[in-house]
Amino acid sequence: MASRSRLLPIVQSARRPALRHTHHAATFNVSVPVRNEVSQCLNMTGSGTRSLSSTPVRCAGGIVKLTSETYPNVKRDERFARVTPEDVAFFKDILCSDSAVIDGVTSEAAEIADDIAPFNEDWMRKYRGQSRLVLRPQTTEQVSHILKYCNDKKLAVVPQGGNTGLVGGSVPVFDEIVLNLGRMNNIISFDEVSGVLVMDAGVILEVADQYLAERGHIFPLDLGAKGSCHVGGNLATNAGGLRLLRYGNLHGTVLGIEAVLPDGTVVDELSTLRKNNTGYDLKQLFIGAEGTIGVITKVAIQCPQRPKAVNVAFFGLESFEHVRRAFREAKSQLSEILSAFELMDAKSQEVVQHVTGNTRPLDGDYPFYCLVETSGSNGEHDYAKLEAFLEDVMSKEIVLDGVVAQDESQVQTLWKWREGVPEALGHVGGVYKYDVSIPLEEMYKLVEDIKVRVEEAGLLNEDLTDTTLAAGRPVAAVVGYGHMGDSNLHLNVSTRAYDKRVESVLEPFVYEWIQKRKGSISAEHGLGIAKKAYIGYSRSDTMVKLMRQIKDLYDPNGIMNPYKYI
Amino acid sequence: MASRSRLLPIVQSARRPALRHTHHAATFNVSVPVRNEVSQCLNMTGSGTRSLSSTPVRCAGGIVKLTSETYPNVKRDERFARVTPEDVAFFKDILCSDSAVIDGVTSEAAEIADDIAPFNEDWMRKYRGQSRLVLRPQTTEQVSHILKYCNDKKLAVVPQGGNTGLVGGSVPVFDEIVLNLGRMNNIISFDEVSGVLVMDAGVILEVADQYLAERGHIFPLDLGAKGSCHVGGNLATNAGGLRLLRYGNLHGTVLGIEAVLPDGTVVDELSTLRKNNTGYDLKQLFIGAEGTIGVITKVAIQCPQRPKAVNVAFFGLESFEHVRRAFREAKSQLSEILSAFELMDAKSQEVVQHVTGNTRPLDGDYPFYCLVETSGSNGEHDYAKLEAFLEDVMSKEIVLDGVVAQDESQVQTLWKWREGVPEALGHVGGVYKYDVSIPLEEMYKLVEDIKVRVEEAGLLNEDLTDTTLAAGRPVAAVVGYGHMGDSNLHLNVSTRAYDKRVESVLEPFVYEWIQKRKGSISAEHGLGIAKKAYIGYSRSDTMVKLMRQIKDLYDPNGIMNPYKYI
Repeated sequence: MASRSRLLPIVQSARRPALRHTHHAATFNVSVPVRNEVSQCLNMTGSGTRSLSSTPVRCAGGIVKLTSETYPNVKRDERFARVTPEDVAFFKDILCSDSAVIDGVTSEAAEIADDIAPFNEDWMRKYRGQSRLVLRPQTTEQVSHILKYCNDKKLAVVPQGGNTGLVGGSVPVFDEIVLNLGRMNNIISFDEVSGVLVMDAGVILEVADQYLAERGHIFPLDLGAKGSCHVGGNLATNAGGLRLLRYGNLHGTVLGIEAVLPDGTVVDELSTLRKNNTGYDLKQLFIGAEGTIGVITKVAIQCPQRPKAVNVAFFGLESFEHVRRAFREAKSQLSEILSAFELMDAKSQEVVQHVTGNTRPLDGDYPFYCLVETSGSNGEHDYAKLEAFLEDVMSKEIVLDGVVAQDESQVQTLWKWREGVPEALGHVGGVYKYDVSIPLEEMYKLVEDIKVRVEEAGLLNEDLTDTTLAAGRPVAAVVGYGHMGDSNLHLNVSTRAYDKRVESVLEPFVYEWIQKRKGSISAEHGLGIAKKAYIGYSRSDTMVKLMRQIKDLYDPNGIMNPYKYI
Repeated sequence: MASRSRLLPIVQSARRPALRHTHHAATFNVSVPVRNEVSQCLNMTGSGTRSLSSTPVRCAGGIVKLTSETYPNVKRDERFARVTPEDVAFFKDILCSDSAVIDGVTSEAAEIADDIAPFNEDWMRKYRGQSRLVLRPQTTEQVSHILKYCNDKKLAVVPQGGNTGLVGGSVPVFDEIVLNLGRMNNIISFDEVSGVLVMDAGVILEVADQYLAERGHIFPLDLGAKGSCHVGGNLATNAGGLRLLRYGNLHGTVLGIEAVLPDGTVVDELSTLRKNNTGYDLKQLFIGAEGTIGVITKVAIQCPQRPKAVNVAFFGLESFEHVRRAFREAKSQLSEILSAFELMDAKSQEVVQHVTGNTRPLDGDYPFYCLVETSGSNGEHDYAKLEAFLEDVMSKEIVLDGVVAQDESQVQTLWKWREGVPEALGHVGGVYKYDVSIPLEEMYKLVEDIKVRVEEAGLLNEDLTDTTLAAGRPVAAVVGYGHMGDSNLHLNVSTRAYDKRVESVLEPFVYEWIQKRKGSISAEHGLGIAKKAYIGYSRSDTMVKLMRQIKDLYDPNGIMNPYKYI
């Protein structure tokens, strides 16, 4: 729960905005709290057998339902061999260590099953595979030997990093071998002049960022799972996160990778150069491929200077159009120091308050809120820019009220009103989650349209204190929030209980709505198994065909992360 | 020639640095002058028949030597058909306009030959092809029809944008059909909130940037040829240029492309979304592919806010190690406003002065010079940061002397001491040019090592006033300059006349030297025909094999831009 903290109000009266305080904010080191974008699995009634990505899955008695039961239409591909004791012996020989192999093939012991369980289940407890073999290599050569062997023997493989994905991409569906990169976790080099960091794919993101913090730099990516996720997994899923607005995406910041193809070929592209125009940039294919064409084993990435100062402001606004105008002004006036512009609607804040009981940052109620963060090398300059920006947007009545954090603890308090949304929604009930990109102009309209549909279907009862289904209206909240700066909306529909009618109101309407506006059905979470069936809403048949060509080129036997992606 | 301009000196005494002036610089709009990175073709004696990328090619009587003569080992691929009058009729029918076809196939008229000539020759007058047909489509559908037809008929094609490349990539070698995109030049849309610009591939870079300037934004790429080069060609060659340090590379900033494959398939990836994780990011393959797998027809790109203020400082330093230290401090202290950090050695400045006769920005002579540019949203803040940085590097004696531009004209004057290097070298004689990436620590050592080799071979006579070859020493200057911020060195060796001994001292030594340090033999200019033979110095056999797979996948008949790239 967020601590109650005194924030510096920018203004009191809502309609006649004027800056009251102009003290300079203290500057401080960045210390971004761990963010949690996904609710825990909830006890839900209902069939639980629909193969829809957003369907809440019942967890009975602490045991996660098998993915193969949730997706009964997905059958094990019988082209794949089953792991034999001979295979296990081969792998133990390659890995030179028994501890690098968790072997449930030759052993049926309960403790082995317990050891394997965490590698079969995702952290949301939404997906569970049936693998009986986990391999934990320590070198690229070992990965190469393993993949070549699996390819020759037609053994299916799931590459696994920190297993923090949101679409079931990093756990097996059936008996695929888990290839976990967790023991490949060395930082190889860092050049303090160029800012280039080279590391194994299994390095945990927070470890890399901490290493960089000690050297005045910052990892150009930050996300909720930073304490567990691996850098290799970040690349494999083309993670977006909180710093994208400022530092750009991984296609731009990654300078080199080393990867292993299914046939054992080592793709040696571990360049540390910012410029290298000598042929096709093949490494780009591995960024966002979700482990379907090979395994990333090493990463070289360009890291910026760590900002010396961070400032955060929190606003109330009267319409989405005003949020857009505020964003435009922020881009124009804060320009090079703008590092986040986050959107939250009224309902999202009401839910957070209901669940946490915390005092709201602003006194009044507004239809929309946004959080603006600046990061720069000079706290005074940054604060002066922020202040001028605030004065401008308030004098133009783009923003009706606002506060500015005065220290790092207040920064974190304000961030919790944005970051706490998914967790709070999880406390209300099961959540249908859509992580989508929509052209900015229409970004919030999806939430409005969905709310109308849910209301018209007689499914909405917004009284959060009513936990019963007395009114026969399961939906407690339709909320929208997300990364305004990236045109990335999180549409969440919170339900008190599983109800088929809710799903039929939401889908395929949501996907069709996004398709019409040329949006993306997966802005940052990827496809995995959850969204595999829906790619047609974001990509043409031609594109899917061209993607299949790439898959077939690199993985003709289809052993890499099967049943998922495209 | 640069105008003489009074600059604000930072300090006078070289050994006891101290800031003398602290007036704030005036702020001004950015207006980057056109930059010229390549010398004109020079009259050189010598064989001129060597197939070395850097060999100066003799231009006799204004006629550019045929590429097929310069590279006698490259033979026309007889798998390709020759264009017939029936083919021409088909193309005229597709393009619905005679003016869109320059037809030297059915007409032998001299004026037609004159019309075709500019499409056969590159702007350096170093490469000349023998095409007799130029097609100038206006729509993607036309491009699709043309390519499908050419693919079916095995007619080779050279996609051509502004034809400003540096490696002969955009002109034919033999009788390939020129597919010029110049008539596809519409700006399609611009979103002032998101900053996303969508345009045809044939839009001229400067036109796009000017369009953006009027809307408070900036194209995230800037380079010398901006007045002629096309945005599509920029993508095809993965152009780097002057803003890369600040805005990142095209793999990060390009959000979407539309391209046509040789079989006529339209790759419809013209997304305007910052985040879209739905499958392999195939558009990345076209960025830097130099037109060898398809033709880019449309581009969507993320454009940043145009900086409101630009400041430039020019320093003298006593060693490359001091330049490195200055760069490190600039990154740390100027951080988010640093937009360029350029290196020039003493010889490069001596040559510029010799040729232009201009007064040097600094009074004393120093072994190294650098140019530091800041761009930001607040001129006062930026200048304060720059001033603090200057004070720091001078008090630590990292920098010995320096000046700061006081207005836009002074900004341009200072830039000319960097930009004028290649042109000035061209006035001295023929130039062996190497555009390479080298890990920063050793970046300048290549220049030193080459100079030693040239001296030891008895080839160096640094007296710029001596234009004779009396001493039998053809080399007038070995200079190094470039984009320090991108670890991108331009090594130029200026010779009074062609001399085989010079070449044998330089090559393959330069390439081997770069290979040992895992550098790149082409930082930003690409491969084209000039560097095709040398890819092995920057890429492993495995990588070249994987690249060939991609080429074969998309262009199985090899009709796209043959004889070049890999």
